[in-house]
Formats: sequence, structure tokens, C-alpha cells
Amino acid sequence: MSDQPTTSTAPAASPRTAAPLAGSGHGDYGFELHHVCAESGARAGQIRTAHGVVPTPTFMPVGTQGAIKGGVLPRDLREMGAGIVLGNTYHLLLRPGPERIAEAGGLARFTGWNGPMLTDSGGFQVFSLGHQAKISDDGVVFRSHIDGRKIRLDAEEAMRVQELYGPDIMMAFDQCPPAGAEARFIETAMRRTTAWLDRCLAARGRRGEVALYGIVQGGINAALRTRHVEEICARDGCEGFAIGGLSVGEATDVTYEICAHTAAQMPQDKARYLMGVGTPEDLLNCVGFGIDQFDCVLPSRNGRHGNAYTFDGPLRIKNSRFTADDRPIEAECGCPACATVSRSLLRHLWMAGEVAGGLWLTLHNLWFFQELMRQARTAILEDRYATWSRQTLERMATKAWR
Amino acid sequence: MSDQPTTSTAPAASPRTAAPLAGSGHGDYGFELHHVCAESGARAGQIRTAHGVVPTPTFMPVGTQGAIKGGVLPRDLREMGAGIVLGNTYHLLLRPGPERIAEAGGLARFTGWNGPMLTDSGGFQVFSLGHQAKISDDGVVFRSHIDGRKIRLDAEEAMRVQELYGPDIMMAFDQCPPAGAEARFIETAMRRTTAWLDRCLAARGRRGEVALYGIVQGGINAALRTRHVEEICARDGCEGFAIGGLSVGEATDVTYEICAHTAAQMPQDKARYLMGVGTPEDLLNCVGFGIDQFDCVLPSRNGRHGNAYTFDGPLRIKNSRFTADDRPIEAECGCPACATVSRSLLRHLWMAGEVAGGLWLTLHNLWFFQELMRQARTAILEDRYATWSRQTLERMATKAWR
Repeated sequence: MSDQPTTSTAPAASPRTAAPLAGSGHGDYGFELHHVCAESGARAGQIRTAHGVVPTPTFMPVGTQGAIKGGVLPRDLREMGAGIVLGNTYHLLLRPGPERIAEAGGLARFTGWNGPMLTDSGGFQVFSLGHQAKISDDGVVFRSHIDGRKIRLDAEEAMRVQELYGPDIMMAFDQCPPAGAEARFIETAMRRTTAWLDRCLAARGRRGEVALYGIVQGGINAALRTRHVEEICARDGCEGFAIGGLSVGEATDVTYEICAHTAAQMPQDKARYLMGVGTPEDLLNCVGFGIDQFDCVLPSRNGRHGNAYTFDGPLRIKNSRFTADDRPIEAECGCPACATVSRSLLRHLWMAGEVAGGLWLTLHNLWFFQELMRQARTAILEDRYATWSRQTLERMATKAWR
Repeated sequence: MSDQPTTSTAPAASPRTAAPLAGSGHGDYGFELHHVCAESGARAGQIRTAHGVVPTPTFMPVGTQGAIKGGVLPRDLREMGAGIVLGNTYHLLLRPGPERIAEAGGLARFTGWNGPMLTDSGGFQVFSLGHQAKISDDGVVFRSHIDGRKIRLDAEEAMRVQELYGPDIMMAFDQCPPAGAEARFIETAMRRTTAWLDRCLAARGRRGEVALYGIVQGGINAALRTRHVEEICARDGCEGFAIGGLSVGEATDVTYEICAHTAAQMPQDKARYLMGVGTPEDLLNCVGFGIDQFDCVLPSRNGRHGNAYTFDGPLRIKNSRFTADDRPIEAECGCPACATVSRSLLRHLWMAGEVAGGLWLTLHNLWFFQELMRQARTAILEDRYATWSRQTLERMATKAWR
């Protein structure tokens, strides 16, 4: 491959000249598959959007309600090389509302990020955060967790609201069954998700402006996943496809088994997004199954809770062993925290309850997730992904930072 | 004057070639008075330290316990052109302790700021935050507000602790009487402050490494201030002098009267630091009386509490008038918040309780205070400080941001 490998000191998209193996696109959005690792199913590619080009595999930081939690600002995202940011339809629907965001020029401009964005459909959070959510074949009616007002969300509304946000990628409205749901419940959710996808495809605005990803459900039942991936991925109007309903409480080996099973049946020429996943271990395993896109709140949530991710495993900053430890979190890391401050200072700020403590850790964690994806991409392009990911997973388990 | 005026787009120290009007220094520390405004008593100069040169007048952001509150990081301070940062002896004494900070290479290195620093003596905060503070001619014994352990602080300990922090400027141990204290109480505090200054001068390490500023007390009694400024400023071993005990609850016109009265009697050739002051209005007035250095928690505290300072007066971001206001806080401002986000987004983040909301506002406020000092310095060098400050104060009162 002629691709320049990305490195920790140059967190930008690598230039690309050779013809892609496969690809698809419509208007501003396009996906190109550049290489499939000879050692694994891992894929390197890129997503093209009106706001920039995103090398894949990519991890999307979560900007829940117009900002990444913990004080991370747009310039921090650019500095760490984040390619695409996720916004939550549910939170932004309640406050400040899609009309306000549209009036402000769309979510990317409103938040100051001005880069590629993906929005979810809101369904997942309605079921987990909305009060008294009543779901039917039509859609869902719920009460705002903020002021109790009644809100209706369905396929058409999810398209209308997301198009007002103006992301580069929007997600179909789906029903995500909880872990442990019975087969009948899962099948109802699958049926609704398929029907709602067709309504989304009918309701969306002119194709080519905002890409639409369909979502595959099916719980942890391989046969149901096969059935649903066939249904969903038959919808040619979708620019990409996602796997939903994983990492909702099931055992990790089950997540991996179902992810591998489902991804293997998804089209080669479109992006594959595993929703809400996950830990560094999850990312490395699922990139190996051919996933291109991830999102998760873990790096920011763990930063705020005093935990740092490292290539030598997780590090709990409040541990008294760090009281007089003048080393950075990770010697080899290029993030602003590791370039500037010590574990000792971070522990002190954490114990003192200073916002800067959680912010430094969040900046490190988000950088670490971007760095993982950069190194993964390089390994894929060099046909050594299975080796690299196995070695990296082994190293993470040693806790060599001790 | 041949000085280059500082501007909002070049927040660096202006180069200086002409000979100073007056100055003093020892070792790494030096103060040079460059110009006294022909229209007022306002002074432009610079403080030289081992960690960098600080143009004066200067406002020092407060890094209470190893970080500026609200998530402001060292690079933010550099970006806004902050010259010197204040650290609080009391907080750092309790946690992580001066020995740890010394072992980590001193406070500037430990915190990642790596620039000029000033530390206070801890006295002021012992009286306001320490439990059961018992003060005598010897010093003060108090209990930590964190774990209740008994701690002793006196002149010798204040020198020992601050020298372990390794700032560029340390403050003498003083007693600051509260607003409304009786003359007898104030006189006792003055007597102790003078005696403690002599003990500080005797206890400090080799002169030339860390500068020591003496502190003038005397409450709001002009005669007592005259007496104490004569006593304190007679101590030639001090590299600079501060006015303490103002802005502790007295009326603003009294603050200004006592500040003007005291500053006028302080030596020309040494820096004059007005401790714990203040609002933009306070800064503009007191620069006019010949003050060179300020510190205050107001810009960061107000940022965290949703208030922005502007040249058109203060702006309360939660006000519903900003719901759909897509303008930046201040159109003319060069801060990262005004370059990136709108009042509408800031109000939304504020209402949503996002850390980023308070952080953006704090970054703006701290930038605004630096910008005020830059514009003040330019006006002084151009002999139009009285005109500029009067016009600026009038504009601040109009609330033209409406």
C-alpha cells in the first residue's frame, strides 16, 4: 500500500492516491475502503464529508448536548486528531431544540467544532432517559427528564430533527432491546426497526445532503442477526450501516461473537458503525471483525472519574502510589497532559476536586483512543493488524505502568 | 516614548530599549519603571524574573491549589498573555505540601505553567479558612479545613514554605484586619506585620533567588496607612511592596481613597502590588493611583457563575435575551470563546450544566483582564491614561451589549 502511516506526532488524515478497493457515496458523503488486512478482517478506509475527510477505523468522541463533557473544547478535538464527533438527538431536542440549532447554522457551527458530525436518532436515550416512554409501531411518546413535557419521536420526526441539526451522517430511528430480552421482544423490535427505516428513507430530504445509516438489531441471537442484517442491508438508500443493541449488558465474549457474525455479512463497500462501543479492548477486537466507526462516552466519563487509559492498562489516579510520581501518565504519549504534567500533579488535582484534574485525564483518554485508531490503521495497511492488536492487548493487560 | 504599544492581537511583552526612569532589583528579580503617565499617576514598567519578563501593570490569575479553577490550563494562560500567576500558600501547604512541590521542581514546574509565579504567605487564608485560628505575636496556629490537623504558620515558616514552592516573588507574613476593625486592633496588626517582616527578612534564604515583598496594613485609616507605609517601605531588603487589607468589605470609594493615599507614599523604584483587587473598575481606578500588580479570583469565579466581563459592562449569560443571540460575547475580543462560540451556545451550555460553559466564560474573563492591562499600558505610554480610563469606565457602565 502506498498510504503514509499515521503517527502519534502527525494526527492528520493521511493523503491517499491509490484507487480504493470498494466504495460508495452520494453527494457530499462517501466511503472508500482502502485495504483489508491480510492477517484479519480489519479494514482501513476513509469517510468523505462536506466538513472534512475522516480516516477509518475512527473513534467518535461524544458531544452529548453541544459539548464534550468535562471541559474539552473544539480545538482540543482538532489537536488530538478527532475526525468526527457524535451529537445526541435526545438531549439537543429537549434543549436548545432543533429549530434553534438550525437557525444558528447547524450543530457543527453552533458548537464551534465546524468539523464532521454524526447524530443518533434519539431512540436509545428516550428508552433509557425519557420518563414514561410509551412505544408502539408508530413511534414513542415520552416525557422530558428535564421539565416533564410530553414529546413524540418517530421515524419522520427523527429525520426532521436530525436534518435541522445538519450533521454529515444521521442515524435511522430504531428500537434497541435491552440485554436479556426474550426472542419475541427482539423480533418485534427488529420488525419495527425495519419498518421505521423504510419510513426514514421515505421521509428524509434530498439524498446527498446528509448520509443516512440503517441499524441492524437482533439481540445476541445469531440467527436473528443474520435475518435482520439481510433485511436492513437490502435497503440500498442507506449510505452506511450500524450494529445496534450490543454492549448493553451482555458478556464481552458474546458482544464479540455477535459483532463478528454480523459484520461479516454487511456490505464491503459501505461504512460499518458499532454503536456505543467501547473499551480499548473492545475497539481492538471489533476493528479485527471489520468495524470502521465507534463511539463511546467511556474516555470522557472515565477521565472525569479519575481513570486514565494507557497502553500499559488502566491507571486509577487517586491511588496513593502516584503521590510522588513525577512521570507523565504515559512517557510515549503525545497528548497535552503527558507533555505538561505529572501523575503526582494529576493525583493532587483529583484529590483537591479541581476541574483541571478531570479535564487533563479526559484529554489524555480521548487522545489515547485516537492514537489507538491511528496505530490500528497503520497496522492494517501494513497487513499486521492481528499481530499488532494481539501484542497491544497483551501489553494492556500487564499494567506495566506500576 | 519609544515603546511599542501592546495590542489585542499581540499579547506578548513589548520589547524595551530606552533606559528606565527608575528601577531596582536583586539577582533574578528586577523592576523597571518605564513611564509615568503625564495625565495621571499610572505607571508602565516591567518585572524581570528567572521565568520571564512581565510588562506592568499586570493582572495575576489565581491558581489556588495548583490550577486555575474551572479547567483553565497553562497553555490557555500563555495564549491570553498572562505574565505571572499567583499560588496560594495555605491551600498548597495542606495539600500536596511544600516538600512534595519542591521535590517536583517547584510550583511553576509542578503545575506545568513554567512561567513567573508569586505566592502569598498564607496568613490571609488561615484567618478566613483555617478552623480555630489562634493568633499571637509569635504567629498563628490553626486546624486544616480538610482534615482538622493542627498547623503552625509564622514568619519563619512562611519563608521556608514559600522558598520550597520556589516562586519568583514571595509575600511577607502579615496580619490583615477585617473591614470595620477598631483602631486598636488595626494597630496591633500593623505592629505584628512590621515585626514579622523583620523576621521574614532575617529568615529568608540568600537574597537574589526569590524576591520578597513587604505588606502595608493600616485599615481604612489614612494616618495609620501613612505610619505603616513609612515603617514597611523603610525595609530596604524588600524587592517590592504590597497594599494589604483593602477590598475586604469597605465601600469602594474608601478603597480608592486609601489606595491612592498609600500608593502615593510608596517608593517609585519598586513594584506596587494591590492584593486581592478587583473588578475591572477597581483595576482601572487603581492603575491610575500608580499600582503595578493585581490579583483576584473574580474573573474565574464569575466565569464559573455564568457572568462575562465586557467593555460594555457585565453580561449574565443565563439571561433569556441570549437564547437566540448568535453573536460572540464581544465582537472585538480576541479570546478563544469569542473566536469560536456564540452567546446562544454559551447560554445553552450554562443551562445544561456543562463544564465547557463555565470554562469558555472563564477563558473570556481572564483574557478580558489581560486585555484591560494591555490597553492600560498602551494608554500610559501614550500619556492618555486618564482619558482612556474615564472613557472605558463610562462605556462599561452603558451595557451596550444589550
